[in-house]
Amino acid sequence: MPRMQAAIFVEPRRIVLDEKPIPEIGPLDALIRITTTTICGTDIHILKGEYPVARGLTIGHEPVGLIEKLGSAEEGQRVIAGAITPSGHSEACLCGCHSQDGAGTRHGWKAMGGWKFGNTIDGCQAEYVRVPDAMANLAPVPDGLTDEQVLMCPDIMSTGFSGAESGRIRIGDTVAVFAQGPIGLCVTAGARLMGATTIIAVDSVPERMAMARRMGADHVVDFTQTDPVEEIRRLTDGRGVDVSIEALGRQETFEASLRVLRPGGTLSSLGVYSGDLRIPLDGFLAGLGDHTIRTTLCPGGKERMRRLMEVIASGRVDTRPLVTHRFKLDRIEEAYDLFGHQRDGVLKVAITP
Amino acid sequence: MPRMQAAIFVEPRRIVLDEKPIPEIGPLDALIRITTTTICGTDIHILKGEYPVARGLTIGHEPVGLIEKLGSAEEGQRVIAGAITPSGHSEACLCGCHSQDGAGTRHGWKAMGGWKFGNTIDGCQAEYVRVPDAMANLAPVPDGLTDEQVLMCPDIMSTGFSGAESGRIRIGDTVAVFAQGPIGLCVTAGARLMGATTIIAVDSVPERMAMARRMGADHVVDFTQTDPVEEIRRLTDGRGVDVSIEALGRQETFEASLRVLRPGGTLSSLGVYSGDLRIPLDGFLAGLGDHTIRTTLCPGGKERMRRLMEVIASGRVDTRPLVTHRFKLDRIEEAYDLFGHQRDGVLKVAITP
Amino acid sequence: MPRMQAAIFVEPRRIVLDEKPIPEIGPLDALIRITTTTICGTDIHILKGEYPVARGLTIGHEPVGLIEKLGSAEEGQRVIAGAITPSGHSEACLCGCHSQDGAGTRHGWKAMGGWKFGNTIDGCQAEYVRVPDAMANLAPVPDGLTDEQVLMCPDIMSTGFSGAESGRIRIGDTVAVFAQGPIGLCVTAGARLMGATTIIAVDSVPERMAMARRMGADHVVDFTQTDPVEEIRRLTDGRGVDVSIEALGRQETFEASLRVLRPGGTLSSLGVYSGDLRIPLDGFLAGLGDHTIRTTLCPGGKERMRRLMEVIASGRVDTRPLVTHRFKLDRIEEAYDLFGHQRDGVLKVAITP
Amino acid sequence: MPRMQAAIFVEPRRIVLDEKPIPEIGPLDALIRITTTTICGTDIHILKGEYPVARGLTIGHEPVGLIEKLGSAEEGQRVIAGAITPSGHSEACLCGCHSQDGAGTRHGWKAMGGWKFGNTIDGCQAEYVRVPDAMANLAPVPDGLTDEQVLMCPDIMSTGFSGAESGRIRIGDTVAVFAQGPIGLCVTAGARLMGATTIIAVDSVPERMAMARRMGADHVVDFTQTDPVEEIRRLTDGRGVDVSIEALGRQETFEASLRVLRPGGTLSSLGVYSGDLRIPLDGFLAGLGDHTIRTTLCPGGKERMRRLMEVIASGRVDTRPLVTHRFKLDRIEEAYDLFGHQRDGVLKVAITP
Repeated sequence: MPRMQAAIFVEPRRIVLDEKPIPEIGPLDALIRITTTTICGTDIHILKGEYPVARGLTIGHEPVGLIEKLGSAEEGQRVIAGAITPSGHSEACLCGCHSQDGAGTRHGWKAMGGWKFGNTIDGCQAEYVRVPDAMANLAPVPDGLTDEQVLMCPDIMSTGFSGAESGRIRIGDTVAVFAQGPIGLCVTAGARLMGATTIIAVDSVPERMAMARRMGADHVVDFTQTDPVEEIRRLTDGRGVDVSIEALGRQETFEASLRVLRPGGTLSSLGVYSGDLRIPLDGFLAGLGDHTIRTTLCPGGKERMRRLMEVIASGRVDTRPLVTHRFKLDRIEEAYDLFGHQRDGVLKVAITP
Repeated sequence: MPRMQAAIFVEPRRIVLDEKPIPEIGPLDALIRITTTTICGTDIHILKGEYPVARGLTIGHEPVGLIEKLGSAEEGQRVIAGAITPSGHSEACLCGCHSQDGAGTRHGWKAMGGWKFGNTIDGCQAEYVRVPDAMANLAPVPDGLTDEQVLMCPDIMSTGFSGAESGRIRIGDTVAVFAQGPIGLCVTAGARLMGATTIIAVDSVPERMAMARRMGADHVVDFTQTDPVEEIRRLTDGRGVDVSIEALGRQETFEASLRVLRPGGTLSSLGVYSGDLRIPLDGFLAGLGDHTIRTTLCPGGKERMRRLMEVIASGRVDTRPLVTHRFKLDRIEEAYDLFGHQRDGVLKVAITP
Repeated sequence: MPRMQAAIFVEPRRIVLDEKPIPEIGPLDALIRITTTTICGTDIHILKGEYPVARGLTIGHEPVGLIEKLGSAEEGQRVIAGAITPSGHSEACLCGCHSQDGAGTRHGWKAMGGWKFGNTIDGCQAEYVRVPDAMANLAPVPDGLTDEQVLMCPDIMSTGFSGAESGRIRIGDTVAVFAQGPIGLCVTAGARLMGATTIIAVDSVPERMAMARRMGADHVVDFTQTDPVEEIRRLTDGRGVDVSIEALGRQETFEASLRVLRPGGTLSSLGVYSGDLRIPLDGFLAGLGDHTIRTTLCPGGKERMRRLMEVIASGRVDTRPLVTHRFKLDRIEEAYDLFGHQRDGVLKVAITP
Repeated sequence: MPRMQAAIFVEPRRIVLDEKPIPEIGPLDALIRITTTTICGTDIHILKGEYPVARGLTIGHEPVGLIEKLGSAEEGQRVIAGAITPSGHSEACLCGCHSQDGAGTRHGWKAMGGWKFGNTIDGCQAEYVRVPDAMANLAPVPDGLTDEQVLMCPDIMSTGFSGAESGRIRIGDTVAVFAQGPIGLCVTAGARLMGATTIIAVDSVPERMAMARRMGADHVVDFTQTDPVEEIRRLTDGRGVDVSIEALGRQETFEASLRVLRPGGTLSSLGVYSGDLRIPLDGFLAGLGDHTIRTTLCPGGKERMRRLMEVIASGRVDTRPLVTHRFKLDRIEEAYDLFGHQRDGVLKVAITP
């Protein structure tokens, strides 16, 4: 049986590159030959043992590659698939909640909903990956776009944009975005794309603050220099924001997001939280503020991917500046080390077999 | 200057009936001669000093009465006004968020949004009440409906129905309603009216549990006999509910509302909370469940009142059973005593001058 | 190869019962043994040659039956499938527009969107039917419900309810429903279920007018006795309706639906039109009335079927009175004759092999 | 009584500049000293007698000026008001349909909904204008913005943007805009602002086609050189558009808008039609395409104006290029002549007293 290289979860604190058989595929699956992939913040949680996956699993959920094998599809077509791979035929999918495909069982729900790659099935930090429900998930890459141009589509851009979309941003809105990591930067770009006219980004890392302006922020608040809640109230002349977006997953940012929100506004939350959250009574206006809090898991599926690649192809947004480092797959352990310790101003890494 | 009787807030723990001048009205205001009013749970918070209002203020925000004086309107017309009285011309109103009219200031927001009667201006537990922005707020009572038939419209029914509406209940939904006080009972009726096919009500007071069935609940769970989260999971065969509605304002009910919610579902919160809230990590699926949490303040305005009275007039819902006791205004202190201590199976009281 | 009986389209004006091989199924398909089915108004269009389908095709798209064969599913399970059978993995499905699955091609759209049974593939007026994309389409019938109780779910009830849903009916709305055939009657039931408080049904057949009241209409207008536009304006005191629903497919009803609509209201159109439509300038307020016109094709898929069967199981709506006649499959030609000529007060027929 | 100059409708084909008394104002009104105004396409309809208004009425509904007198407001504040002036307290306003304020009567609806300036009350092509319901309608102009920068906000930009908003444009949408007059150009800018990634504008006037690209169009189709329906199908590779927007008010453009629409798409119609419209059976997919057709009247009110001025102030859109000609009020008859005959590449004119 032919074999390939893959980044494998061995045990907490150990992800190693090793050989595995090339996956066999079912009738509706596709076998993708990976051309580029990357490492997500979530993979670091797996590495640290904070998010448990099965030992021996290949890690990675942001594939860019070529169709190697597929029943009816054209082999050799360059494609991407979303980090979340909806089946299309579950109850969740049929009521339009595609991200939660696979989340419901009779004995409880899984916190990661429809996330399968590198979570419940082998992932794409490897030479090959099996794509489940390929007909719902394979999206051809338009000619003229490079792997790196579309590398943020499967997860980072889909998640970041969904933060803006779930906030229901309208023309003329004032928006605050808490944290400007790769996802927060895509929130900023998405808010700009949807017509927000005042975008306030919050972070403290100089490279990220500079990138925030480049992605469309009107104001950038350094939370180490000033209290962001006070500063946002000042910038909005006391009105607060129409939409605030949490893109980190911490109590402080969740709470600040709520405190800057005007009555009737929406808090769109993207963060993966690691403990109970506290809703402050005053920020919540005692439950009488006509507030909406909405959480969103990265939307997947081929139609989502097609639309995001359209955003790139039309020149509306360029996510290439987010890819700051490049590694060959056989140096992926080094990449984990750099990305996990946020060294050298890293935003995202590109991995190529 | 002619005088009238009114229930007046003197100091914490003292609301007394006393004489005050009949209010003078401005050009767009109306002077209503009260024919029936009631006492709200919120008034009890004021009585206890938990919610501070100015001393000397008349209490009450659920007026039914006759127009005594109004520039252009017909005097003698029987009308109601909502507990919340939007001006119609504020920024909040002009963007469709009428309940938050008056909530925003440059120096902070008020937790009670657009609530004015018995909060920031004199209320309607009196012989007369001044209605601000009368043109936006006076709703004529259709002939053939009694005062008691429409007495729940200004607050209880408007709030309760809004809990169902903010949950965006759809045909075929499974809905849980936590607490079956007057507002929770109206949530149950509203959920039924919107097409929910499985309605699970939670309470423990026998009269309220019986009334819950009468208002449309399919199942009633006594939380003193069984764990409601376990029981709702069992009743839904592990799927959870599409919409859960909090109608009490406590940590336990908020938390249970979240724990029974399916991924992609909505928690509609009506409660007035008195402390910080905790969001449990598991119930929140770590922020990845595509959940929506929405709070709603009682919708007001004449068009809302017209619609609610249509619900009564068409026979779809009958709220008369919620009025369990009747008092003359000059015995209102007795009514406060009964209602405040929840004696004698009281749900709501009707007050008539 | 085993054979079965089936109603087959031979040529315009000829649908005959004949023998065909029992269908072979693919890996994701199901073979259903039909226990009950019915004839739709659309089948009459096919019979008359007004809607062209391939010669030799089995007709019928409202199956109730038993799983005979399916990869992973339990054989012998009683199921239904919707008239429209979305694949789940098309672009249309992935953006939530499941009914239009299969409608788009590079060379034009098909007017019937995702309708496959008895249109592009063999239908269910037969002993067996192949269900495409079975995992997305097979819905188990809850124990305790008979075939006839759920027989309206695949098409009539799904279409009728969608007319109310696409009208975005809200609590307190006034709604007009034009035509009270089986679909119009389900619109009436759906409008009632969603909280409309004044429902005005229009028809002229005495049995249908009586049934309209039974399904929830508050007023029934006989268009042969009075001008329905005038009468609806009178009944609404000149305000017009919030939502009007066209359930016939004719110029007169479309036009009347628009003329009774208030500014800002919604016309929900279910009819299958057979010629160009005219929008009257005055009814359309010259394009300045903030009107919405929305067309809807019968929603399908297993989750939709599950929800509709919930409506039946909860006792909210009973569609059994709509089934007025019963035939064995071998007398289906007789059933076509009765149903096609609307004899004997027929609403819907049940067909059993 | 002090007098002022005003453009007055005398009879069909005659609008003259003449003297009138400066308006007296009621307690909630404002008297605005006009600093800049413009002429709308609708005014030309009035001039030609195609849209009847009372003789002696001052024409014009796009005011920019200074508060001259107002009960509580600061006199001398520079303000604008929308072309549509909702009262805030009507039923229409209270259910969020502000543009239709004043449209409903017991004896029929007016096609122009809430349009009052220069329609039912004196307009702003004058030295002074009375603003009804001033508290709902006066929007202060931010310091630093000139009159001409905000001159498109009251009507052209509000209408054009609403065409994009009513189309519910989402990130990644393909959008067609039929006609690139001032309103169509603002549709194009609005579609860009909301995240459409392929915008196809249709016109034939070279200046307008060039301006369309400047406002954000990706493709511009000259309908005199090619069939726009064919061309749009070609540009979209046969998929059609997600949203098409009619910005002219003619049968041809309405029909083409429908023919290029994908199943499930939305036709957003802004045009003021002057006769019955025909819906082609094929473009409408016989009523089974899950299509939405939505008409929108220019949104008004101070909050809308504030948001549009935010768009200008933030630099997202610059509408100054749309103002191609400038006239003093005393030469307004000349301006009507130029604008009415579309001479000299005119887009919009600025009028200053």
